[in-house]
Amino acid sequence: MNKIEHIGIAVKDMDSAIKIYEQLLNTKCYKIEEVQSEGVKTAFFRVGESKIELLEATNPESPIAKFIEKRGVGMHHIAFDVTNIEAEIERLIAQDFQLIQKTPKNGADNKKIAFLHPRSTAGLLVELCQERTD
Amino acid sequence: MNKIEHIGIAVKDMDSAIKIYEQLLNTKCYKIEEVQSEGVKTAFFRVGESKIELLEATNPESPIAKFIEKRGVGMHHIAFDVTNIEAEIERLIAQDFQLIQKTPKNGADNKKIAFLHPRSTAGLLVELCQERTD
Repeated sequence: MNKIEHIGIAVKDMDSAIKIYEQLLNTKCYKIEEVQSEGVKTAFFRVGESKIELLEATNPESPIAKFIEKRGVGMHHIAFDVTNIEAEIERLIAQDFQLIQKTPKNGADNKKIAFLHPRSTAGLLVELCQERTD
Repeated sequence: MNKIEHIGIAVKDMDSAIKIYEQLLNTKCYKIEEVQSEGVKTAFFRVGESKIELLEATNPESPIAKFIEKRGVGMHHIAFDVTNIEAEIERLIAQDFQLIQKTPKNGADNKKIAFLHPRSTAGLLVELCQERTD
């Protein structure tokens, strides 16, 4: 894992959350992006080499809507930057981690991504991500 | 905020969590430290410019024991590195953030720290930290 690529934070009201995070982090939101396939709207902030990604559900079936229903708003996942996502998936499967995607899929912010199941990570939802070059 | 200093993760069984995180992050735990005043045992891993801090309760009154009871294991707080923690506390109070400590206290890993109340941060428990020089 090269670095923390981003921390995903589930919010209920994106407009109000963007204002709060701009004040908190003392930096402007630099990108808003909707990922229709995931039912989420995302907003990004830079902090050092990492990013904060706010996540708002765009429909009631969205994983973010379900997460908020179950655990409330707040930290949803941690994403690590990797150099070769296919090799990293292979390494983790060999060590008995459970991958939600064994083949990377396209995510927000021009990334190939794959999630690990919290069952195998002591409760943490972990995302692997690699910048897309295509 | 200069960077994500660390992500605090609440765990139930530190020994088993250390093994899982060493495999996940592909790096060794470099420090274990008990903070008696907080009722926590901590374990640290480096990822890029940031750290992962595992947190285990050392008594049933520990904030970590209460957090796990209420929300389960997983991400507990996000800590940002700041250059001047007193100035940052002042800046945030002026913007109506609620500080749990208005004067920094000593934390793990040789830091001066102060927490923001999740009420004022859209649900996120935020820690400010500055390396101690004394």
